[in-house]
Amino acid sequence: MIEPRYAKSFASDNHAGAHPAVMDAVAAANTGDAPAYGDDEWTAALQDRLRDEFGAHAAGFVVLNGTGANMLSLSMMMTRRYEAIICPESAHIATHETGASERVLGVKLVTVPTPDGRLTPDDVTARLGGRGNISEVQPKVVSISEVTELGTCYTPDQIAALAEVAHDNGMLLHMDGARLANAAAFLGCSLRALTTDAGVDVLSFGGSKNGGLVGEAVVVLRPDLADAAPYLRRQTLQLGSKMRYISAQLTALLTDDLWRKNATQANTMAKRLADGVSDLPGLDIRYPVESNAIFATLPPDTIPTLQSQYLFHTWHAPTNTVRWMTAFNTTPTEIDTFTTTIRQTLKP
Amino acid sequence: MIEPRYAKSFASDNHAGAHPAVMDAVAAANTGDAPAYGDDEWTAALQDRLRDEFGAHAAGFVVLNGTGANMLSLSMMMTRRYEAIICPESAHIATHETGASERVLGVKLVTVPTPDGRLTPDDVTARLGGRGNISEVQPKVVSISEVTELGTCYTPDQIAALAEVAHDNGMLLHMDGARLANAAAFLGCSLRALTTDAGVDVLSFGGSKNGGLVGEAVVVLRPDLADAAPYLRRQTLQLGSKMRYISAQLTALLTDDLWRKNATQANTMAKRLADGVSDLPGLDIRYPVESNAIFATLPPDTIPTLQSQYLFHTWHAPTNTVRWMTAFNTTPTEIDTFTTTIRQTLKP
Amino acid sequence: MIEPRYAKSFASDNHAGAHPAVMDAVAAANTGDAPAYGDDEWTAALQDRLRDEFGAHAAGFVVLNGTGANMLSLSMMMTRRYEAIICPESAHIATHETGASERVLGVKLVTVPTPDGRLTPDDVTARLGGRGNISEVQPKVVSISEVTELGTCYTPDQIAALAEVAHDNGMLLHMDGARLANAAAFLGCSLRALTTDAGVDVLSFGGSKNGGLVGEAVVVLRPDLADAAPYLRRQTLQLGSKMRYISAQLTALLTDDLWRKNATQANTMAKRLADGVSDLPGLDIRYPVESNAIFATLPPDTIPTLQSQYLFHTWHAPTNTVRWMTAFNTTPTEIDTFTTTIRQTLKP
Amino acid sequence: MIEPRYAKSFASDNHAGAHPAVMDAVAAANTGDAPAYGDDEWTAALQDRLRDEFGAHAAGFVVLNGTGANMLSLSMMMTRRYEAIICPESAHIATHETGASERVLGVKLVTVPTPDGRLTPDDVTARLGGRGNISEVQPKVVSISEVTELGTCYTPDQIAALAEVAHDNGMLLHMDGARLANAAAFLGCSLRALTTDAGVDVLSFGGSKNGGLVGEAVVVLRPDLADAAPYLRRQTLQLGSKMRYISAQLTALLTDDLWRKNATQANTMAKRLADGVSDLPGLDIRYPVESNAIFATLPPDTIPTLQSQYLFHTWHAPTNTVRWMTAFNTTPTEIDTFTTTIRQTLKP
Repeated sequence: MIEPRYAKSFASDNHAGAHPAVMDAVAAANTGDAPAYGDDEWTAALQDRLRDEFGAHAAGFVVLNGTGANMLSLSMMMTRRYEAIICPESAHIATHETGASERVLGVKLVTVPTPDGRLTPDDVTARLGGRGNISEVQPKVVSISEVTELGTCYTPDQIAALAEVAHDNGMLLHMDGARLANAAAFLGCSLRALTTDAGVDVLSFGGSKNGGLVGEAVVVLRPDLADAAPYLRRQTLQLGSKMRYISAQLTALLTDDLWRKNATQANTMAKRLADGVSDLPGLDIRYPVESNAIFATLPPDTIPTLQSQYLFHTWHAPTNTVRWMTAFNTTPTEIDTFTTTIRQTLKP
Repeated sequence: MIEPRYAKSFASDNHAGAHPAVMDAVAAANTGDAPAYGDDEWTAALQDRLRDEFGAHAAGFVVLNGTGANMLSLSMMMTRRYEAIICPESAHIATHETGASERVLGVKLVTVPTPDGRLTPDDVTARLGGRGNISEVQPKVVSISEVTELGTCYTPDQIAALAEVAHDNGMLLHMDGARLANAAAFLGCSLRALTTDAGVDVLSFGGSKNGGLVGEAVVVLRPDLADAAPYLRRQTLQLGSKMRYISAQLTALLTDDLWRKNATQANTMAKRLADGVSDLPGLDIRYPVESNAIFATLPPDTIPTLQSQYLFHTWHAPTNTVRWMTAFNTTPTEIDTFTTTIRQTLKP
Repeated sequence: MIEPRYAKSFASDNHAGAHPAVMDAVAAANTGDAPAYGDDEWTAALQDRLRDEFGAHAAGFVVLNGTGANMLSLSMMMTRRYEAIICPESAHIATHETGASERVLGVKLVTVPTPDGRLTPDDVTARLGGRGNISEVQPKVVSISEVTELGTCYTPDQIAALAEVAHDNGMLLHMDGARLANAAAFLGCSLRALTTDAGVDVLSFGGSKNGGLVGEAVVVLRPDLADAAPYLRRQTLQLGSKMRYISAQLTALLTDDLWRKNATQANTMAKRLADGVSDLPGLDIRYPVESNAIFATLPPDTIPTLQSQYLFHTWHAPTNTVRWMTAFNTTPTEIDTFTTTIRQTLKP
Repeated sequence: MIEPRYAKSFASDNHAGAHPAVMDAVAAANTGDAPAYGDDEWTAALQDRLRDEFGAHAAGFVVLNGTGANMLSLSMMMTRRYEAIICPESAHIATHETGASERVLGVKLVTVPTPDGRLTPDDVTARLGGRGNISEVQPKVVSISEVTELGTCYTPDQIAALAEVAHDNGMLLHMDGARLANAAAFLGCSLRALTTDAGVDVLSFGGSKNGGLVGEAVVVLRPDLADAAPYLRRQTLQLGSKMRYISAQLTALLTDDLWRKNATQANTMAKRLADGVSDLPGLDIRYPVESNAIFATLPPDTIPTLQSQYLFHTWHAPTNTVRWMTAFNTTPTEIDTFTTTIRQTLKP
């Protein structure tokens, strides 16, 4: 019997286990033979649920992880070898995918410094000066993350403004939605309000950070882009053979708003943690806490003390900034115990 | 409640469900928080099991699917942009990965026609004529599949001979082991006899076709190749975040020789099917049945009749060749019923 | 003063020097300042000449070498990452470009064995069985070489038949025209008859093998493909800065049918050589001599004897096959002397 | 007879013609047959000259243009798919090669903002925080341009300091030397002092901007890197067939220090122009004039007036910054006439 090493991790929502309803759905899918590669009943059912959430034109493609979701999404949005992607410097595709965009897709990321992970329409237009210059890459996609990698959220209006500037300039809007559920929970809106209604063209909907075991969905909102997706999914190494087991998980999350309940719990716990420590001298919360992540600057000597008791990552060593993340399974008691530990450790 | 559409599929071992022990292992892994990306106890336990099977130098890397396993394996074996891979024309990497080798890896496959999916040392040496010619790609990897895509097996001696010719010519030997378990079961040997002891350098060990839900392992048998693997796994979109759920499956298959029991059952059922139909006039079994696949040429008008009752694929339409596959969960009764159906359908 | 090492090379038409008219054109272009990257008067003049030869819709793009011409041509014809190219096994893009198609373009070449380097419509249709199968690459381009790498020529009708099968199946026809001039000279037809009128979509027109110093032209016959070409030319490393010096060479070759005179001389000399040796016992001419190349099988011991006196390449060592090439500057006397040497060397 | 459209261009040193000695060398190389692809006497002679300048271990590779030189250089320096390049934001490889680094090489450029195009050792070390993090690319090459794209020069000591920090961290130092001659002329030092002696590993030596027609040289200063270069040159579309004509040009430039004379003339003329206009109200010279380029901010309405008389590029429209370049053939009279025109146009 394997026992986990940590009572509680605040390192990542990937450290949480799977939600019981997700586990039940996987077990229920294990019945008899079923066609592979998505031609099964569970994947068909997921398509229905995705259309319910994202609109009748939504086409869903189950993939295996978040980086895969991004690469598949972007690969279908770009058809010319000299097209480029405009994204924030902090974008996951720019920082933590080991150069997959450049190596697997072959595209240049035109990265934009931002104060809090959010791109603005002006950021985009300022990168269009090379339009028509044959020596420069030609931006074709604007890529944003909702929630951003710094824990902040775009409002529906902010997304719509980006979609408008993208479309007005012959570009498409991509959303890395690894934590899209957390954004919708924070903003109190539907998934559709942040995506389809705001003009997003292709997005990913994260399952694993929301209580799944494995698997994400790419949702294509422009039917003309979807034809290529099945080929690209195979080629980008994202086609699961026994897809039913992944589809069943995503369907479970999309049933009875489980995704929202899970995300709300995670967000609420992050807020509770932030509220419990924000007054501490020497502790500085760097970005608005709008999801399930807190970025905090701490006195440097307190970091190893805390890390000896709780698992969490140093985000940026030069500034002594750490990241604390909550998940669907984080409890108020866990937060309160952690809060007490932090307060005692930082006590002058 | 979703019901499967087919009573029985003979289309692929991917159509079978997951083995109950695999399901149990996944459920047991769902306890508390655990580090992501492989720094968990379940993945550590899998490493132990892989070393038991493949030797003390074996380094295992959990990946998400078979194409991903191949791309990760090959990417770590090749360091120069002009290196190439010698493989049979029938290799999965050459035929059914939508050009991932060329697009994701950027390498040329030097493909060799074979009578039954098996490469020979002479096939390899005959492709080395361009050594040192700067206008030609330089073979660096010999890639074989065990079981082959045509259902045949290499013996340990045949693999050792290929390893020798590869190594003698400065090349490495890669094995796509999506159905390695079936080969070891057919040949009555250990996994190690077909890999480590035969001189294989990097291989994949298939989980999903052997009773898993999702996930495979890449096993690196040359320590100097393993350093790059973690970076390459992330970049080739094969790094699962909640890895414990995949590692637990593979460990379950590697416990108490479950992999061999599952493979033996599949192989035995294929043999039973072949034995039951091979005397039929108009039916021609194309390759030796050495695993869980049968390739049969049928009278053309009988194919749609049979496909209306059972799910299976036409493998090569111009020659009226179909593929029938069995799996760990195929029963003698299912085989016998299918045999009867075939016999009746082909009755003159 | 550097002196050449060989009195005469029969190894390649690349070994010939530059035609005096080409040299004069380069010298004449060296007058004052001129815009770089093709915005100069000499490149404008070349465009006019190319339109004269290939039709009003032809758009020309000067590039730096033959492999670059092929990569630029193919890159503009393919917009999806899973598209593939059907070509003969003997195609230069498949054999002698060090894997540039796979590495630089990222595409799979679906290669077809042929008796003499020529593809047929049936060869093409036989490779379309995977249409719509998401696990297989999807052919988008049929690529032929005129003259082929084995010295044979397609007739206008043969090219038109390939264009028809390509277009009927949603594909495009590419022509590697490194020796297009030799084909038109052999067939006694215009460049246009072999390209525009036959339905070719994109082709290269070789300059260096026809008496130039450096540089080729890509000619785009479908206006919708041309927009991307300037970006792709820069990206594929084929944009010459002082383009006037290359454009001037190509214009010289296209003036007063110099290209045809040069090609005719080369072809005639190859025919003279073939006629002079074809009756020799032990010498077997492998392919019809339809251009400026002769492929001959010789008694193995005679090859080094001849190579000690004349520079030429062994084409295929296992069959003792050599290649002899002539060029625009080959003279009857040179052929007759070489013929005599061969006859004496092979004398029983 | 084609006449150039502009009396004088200040847009680029690529707009100048070829130096008469270069033309003579090309003409002299046009004698008889010679082996292709670099196995000729002219290329052997160039190798000797390169060794004279760069040291006995220098291996030269003739290529076709500057972007090709960069891609070949970088491709031989990087063997792992997850390696990255640290370079200034203003680097040609980052800004004006239409994404070739990302598309052709597949690498991420880690770009650094700089005040004047020059990277510092601290810039490099600050980008090494992700060493060993498998989610981040791993820097392998530091790439600098000498002269920089902003017309400034690194001193030998500055280059040596970058080489030291690169080598101390397991990286290599690459130099884009499209205008290396101008730097050596400005600094009054040898080519070797800026390269071999300073610890550069691979560099390009620009021919076309120094009075050549076409062609550059890649110079490899670490013998262990050179083995791969011939294959990579072919694959990166940079192998010229009739190489003698390019080698002869480069040899001409490297004979009797013609490269230094040409560069000195260009630099002197740029200095003369800068001196003649730097006192003008409303005109601001943005970077130290250390080569043959001047970047000047002008009153916006004066730019079109000047551009109607002289060809030059607007470098950065939002700040009304133009670039003026001189070349080996620029005369004092041309500078003085241009200076007068500028002064009159900017007169209040």
